[in-house]
Amino acid sequence: TILDAIEKILDGANRSQPLVGMRALVTGGPTHEPIDPVRFLANRSSGRQSYAIAAALAEAGAAVTLVSGPVALSPPAGVERIGVTTAVEMLAACEAALPVDIAICAAAVGDWRPLHVDAMKIKKVAGKTMSIELAENPDILASLSRHPQSRPRLVVGFAAETGDPLREAMAKLERKGCDWIVANDVSPNQGVFGGLNNTVTLLRRDRPPEAWPTAEKTSVAKRLVAEIALDLVGEDF
Amino acid sequence: TILDAIEKILDGANRSQPLVGMRALVTGGPTHEPIDPVRFLANRSSGRQSYAIAAALAEAGAAVTLVSGPVALSPPAGVERIGVTTAVEMLAACEAALPVDIAICAAAVGDWRPLHVDAMKIKKVAGKTMSIELAENPDILASLSRHPQSRPRLVVGFAAETGDPLREAMAKLERKGCDWIVANDVSPNQGVFGGLNNTVTLLRRDRPPEAWPTAEKTSVAKRLVAEIALDLVGEDF
Repeated sequence: TILDAIEKILDGANRSQPLVGMRALVTGGPTHEPIDPVRFLANRSSGRQSYAIAAALAEAGAAVTLVSGPVALSPPAGVERIGVTTAVEMLAACEAALPVDIAICAAAVGDWRPLHVDAMKIKKVAGKTMSIELAENPDILASLSRHPQSRPRLVVGFAAETGDPLREAMAKLERKGCDWIVANDVSPNQGVFGGLNNTVTLLRRDRPPEAWPTAEKTSVAKRLVAEIALDLVGEDF
Repeated sequence: TILDAIEKILDGANRSQPLVGMRALVTGGPTHEPIDPVRFLANRSSGRQSYAIAAALAEAGAAVTLVSGPVALSPPAGVERIGVTTAVEMLAACEAALPVDIAICAAAVGDWRPLHVDAMKIKKVAGKTMSIELAENPDILASLSRHPQSRPRLVVGFAAETGDPLREAMAKLERKGCDWIVANDVSPNQGVFGGLNNTVTLLRRDRPPEAWPTAEKTSVAKRLVAEIALDLVGEDF
């Protein structure tokens, strides 16, 4: 109805938009690294957390580019989505999106890709063992964090780890040169992959780690964007 | 409305259901073969063709079990879907569904799985090359085609090949011991993966290959089920 529409507009006008005028880059989803036309190496990621972050950034007024690996989600309203498949394509799309004020690397980027990609489907040969040689993929988080010309003001990485996620995430913060790390435990019993909830710890340089209570991925996204707004413009959101 | 409902029932009653009383097994989607909790080896398959076949078999009156790898599709009405991840799980689910009259193996089953599955996320070590050793997966189409106790009356395989698809499919028909092969060319320029259309050739023992015109996957499914009905019950559908 017209009344609903008016209400929506007023609601939007009343909402605080602390990130107006800022550009944000979000990466999300997995990468798929082809072996041949039929087979590929993949990472587990539904893209839900990153899509929620892109949506929350847009709601906060930022101009958002979402560089997304293959997922089954529709792009959030007001977000420019650039679809990619491999880590190499994802890095190129991220570099093309620069300069940005905020970069949030939430994609599950494959660390490796097959060294050789076959143009034809590899045939099974009876009794013959197979192995796939791998080459290291570019490190998108480190590339953005150490970008010589266009280092974003704030670079946030995600660390999806098993074992001792906090220790792994701390090491990652140092190694990659990013500002914040959102650490989550993706051990199979946590049900993070594909699920609606997430349990994360926010790690920042020179501040104690903040363990957030388990919440819907959309709530985690809003809280993260609120922290970003507080950090960049000192505004409560 | 009530009129719509009545019309639907009458329509259903009028529709020819040549496969009433028969049990059908359909496999569809890709398999995902875990490397560690985060990474896996996968095959390209949207599951669209197999889901359309399961729907067409159910419409023709068969009791359909759809053993499906991870896809982003909802199960067709009236079809029992059993979700699986790996080829080993898919074979077990297929064997549990026997005996059936008709088996249609349309899944993109990985020929290989990683020989070792790590319980923890494998860490990247700078400068160290990586490779994945592979073990051969069970052959579901051959297992059903050569089942010692419960060989279905009709076993149909799919051959998604590049290069010379027809020759590969002919060889597959012999090698696997199935009755029919639906061959399609999945070279990247064909746009079959994830697309709505399919161009297939039906290969049957002692009959010349039938190249079908490019059609929607739902139409290909209906035509295939019509051929099955003609073959098994001699009834035009």
